[in-house]
Amino acid sequence: MSLYQATASAPVNIACIKYWGKRDTALILPTNSSLSVTLDQDHLRSTTTSRADASFTKDTLWLNGKEEVIKPGGRTAVCIEELRRLRKVAEDANSNEPKISSFKLHIASYNNFPTAAGLASSAAGFAALVSSIAQLYSLDKVLSASQLSLIARQGSGSACRSLMGGFVAWQAGQLADGSDSLAVQVAPREHWPEMHALICVVSDAKKGTSSTSGMQRTVETSPLLQHRINHVVPQRMKDITAAIQARDFPTFARLTMQDSNQFHAVCLDTEPPIFYMNDVSRALVQLVVEYNRAAGEVRAAYTYDAGPNCVIYVLQKHVKEIANLVVRFFPLAETFKDPFALFASEKIGELAVPEGFNSAVVASFPAGSVKGLIHTRVGDGPRKITDDAVHLLDAQGQPKPV
Amino acid sequence: MSLYQATASAPVNIACIKYWGKRDTALILPTNSSLSVTLDQDHLRSTTTSRADASFTKDTLWLNGKEEVIKPGGRTAVCIEELRRLRKVAEDANSNEPKISSFKLHIASYNNFPTAAGLASSAAGFAALVSSIAQLYSLDKVLSASQLSLIARQGSGSACRSLMGGFVAWQAGQLADGSDSLAVQVAPREHWPEMHALICVVSDAKKGTSSTSGMQRTVETSPLLQHRINHVVPQRMKDITAAIQARDFPTFARLTMQDSNQFHAVCLDTEPPIFYMNDVSRALVQLVVEYNRAAGEVRAAYTYDAGPNCVIYVLQKHVKEIANLVVRFFPLAETFKDPFALFASEKIGELAVPEGFNSAVVASFPAGSVKGLIHTRVGDGPRKITDDAVHLLDAQGQPKPV
Repeated sequence: MSLYQATASAPVNIACIKYWGKRDTALILPTNSSLSVTLDQDHLRSTTTSRADASFTKDTLWLNGKEEVIKPGGRTAVCIEELRRLRKVAEDANSNEPKISSFKLHIASYNNFPTAAGLASSAAGFAALVSSIAQLYSLDKVLSASQLSLIARQGSGSACRSLMGGFVAWQAGQLADGSDSLAVQVAPREHWPEMHALICVVSDAKKGTSSTSGMQRTVETSPLLQHRINHVVPQRMKDITAAIQARDFPTFARLTMQDSNQFHAVCLDTEPPIFYMNDVSRALVQLVVEYNRAAGEVRAAYTYDAGPNCVIYVLQKHVKEIANLVVRFFPLAETFKDPFALFASEKIGELAVPEGFNSAVVASFPAGSVKGLIHTRVGDGPRKITDDAVHLLDAQGQPKPV
Repeated sequence: MSLYQATASAPVNIACIKYWGKRDTALILPTNSSLSVTLDQDHLRSTTTSRADASFTKDTLWLNGKEEVIKPGGRTAVCIEELRRLRKVAEDANSNEPKISSFKLHIASYNNFPTAAGLASSAAGFAALVSSIAQLYSLDKVLSASQLSLIARQGSGSACRSLMGGFVAWQAGQLADGSDSLAVQVAPREHWPEMHALICVVSDAKKGTSSTSGMQRTVETSPLLQHRINHVVPQRMKDITAAIQARDFPTFARLTMQDSNQFHAVCLDTEPPIFYMNDVSRALVQLVVEYNRAAGEVRAAYTYDAGPNCVIYVLQKHVKEIANLVVRFFPLAETFKDPFALFASEKIGELAVPEGFNSAVVASFPAGSVKGLIHTRVGDGPRKITDDAVHLLDAQGQPKPV
């Protein structure tokens, strides 16, 4: 008897040109295009195992070992049903294909980073879910990553950008059915492998507004959002694409910072206003701005999503300098574990500040205000996992202990 | 021998529709119109004594007892010279007028509120300076407040709005020479005397970007500012003027909050971004938003200028409720001295929260995060002070001890 099972992992992505606002909330069609960098799954990933079996009585999903309700018509159900429909088409066309589309699914998913880190776990999660079911159904052999991104998009908008590696654009599209609202790769990771990222995990007492409800409030109430959508983002998409193609870091970095600022500006222009950055986030902006000023060139770019965490894009050659500054001004609550071992012989935070850096401009905060620091880089797209030890379901189709 | 001297006091004003950006930095011509409420001089004021005397050897200014350099061609010098020129015209036209325009001036100015409070002291200061010299030169008898506002505007833009009481618009104007960029009264204080204001003085470790340099950085770098100037503010000016005329507090309040939000949004859209609100400011926003939500109507409006202080506009009948909430969630560092004695028999901060108010949404901060609370209301325009005890210069033309 065959075991119909597949395991995939998928990466996190962090946008440089931000997605904020839907023109269709059911299909998850955005008001503007966006662009992100896919981060390396060696460090941050969602892993999902999907199994189809005649003995299963209902589609069941476990996230980090905990069962999650699959709401009929909800986002997870929509993704599963669309993949199942495509499998059925393939089965009907080829009688040799086992009829597994009629089986229920058991799906187990696991993030190797804490949810509390405030990283967009739903993007990696839906990308891994769609990738694993597509592999299980052998759809990955006939559908491109862009085609699969159409499905992941309906799970969580930004998940579509985690369907490929490198530098990825989510084209807003124009069609009412959303069939042109998909991800395309602007450049693979190999084009610019020196692109590294430092994630500064910022403590925050309060849970902010969810991005799903927040972005629609912005669409409904911000007078500035329409100007951003129609007159700012289109040009920025062109400009950052060109910067990536030319490996022009200063231009890439300036556009990234400008767009992070503008995303938070339209949040503030919302009624009532939405705040995601806190005083520590602001101080990290000051640190990056001062670092670039002192260097006489733009060497680092901050960007903030719907939370206080700061992601700093920086070329490999400058990671050490900026990482040292972050830890020097914001002593971490957690030990920094660097996969690149940049500080093998030295202690992070104890190196001198760069020449000309004015420490007085960075507001000081208690130790632990930045909880942790994650060092990663541009990465590849979803992976097919064949190592049996990684599969997340046991022989009975139940999730293994996490 | 005559003593040529006059003393004037002038009020603070706090904008509801914000001024941010100059189209002409020398003449101080704004990129958009703005509108403010003049606050009561009984509580907050700048007082200035100006004296002309043949014995004086140079124009000299003291602020709070400390001599300030009057830079040739600088803003103070421009105001003085324009008033002197107008005096000279009057003297030339009427030979009975004493020829005091040829005398140097001694000017002493005093704010009755701490500079550290972060209130726009330059607005009240320049309004008092222009008013006192205009009185000394008898120009106040021939020039309207709007005409004098043209002069005060060149000292500090928002000072033009302190030249009159009540609700005051600064019309941006269109002429290159600035002769149509002046203040006009939308309504006197008597029209809506129930309009009260609570100023929450927020502690801030860091001095932010000066508004003079900040606003020009926004003009130069914010893609959203032009949309605000051309498409948002003109309608808001009409709408808030109508709301004031109709005494429609909810509309007045919503526009005030929206425009505060948008001002800080364009600051954030600046490169590098400008932040004036801090975490305590944000928590005060949450408090006001929750207060309005629980009340089922808009009873209070927050507004923030170029600093973390929160000014809350609220009708007299609701001051007690919101003042109690502020102090309950933000225990003050300083004792609250209420000129209206609203809490005569009760203790501020110890009354119950309003029905339905969800305390959980207001982030909590250490006591003293809001340093002090000032309760005032809409007030009148500059006053002529005849009480000898108030004059700020002694017999020798030196500032009296402050």
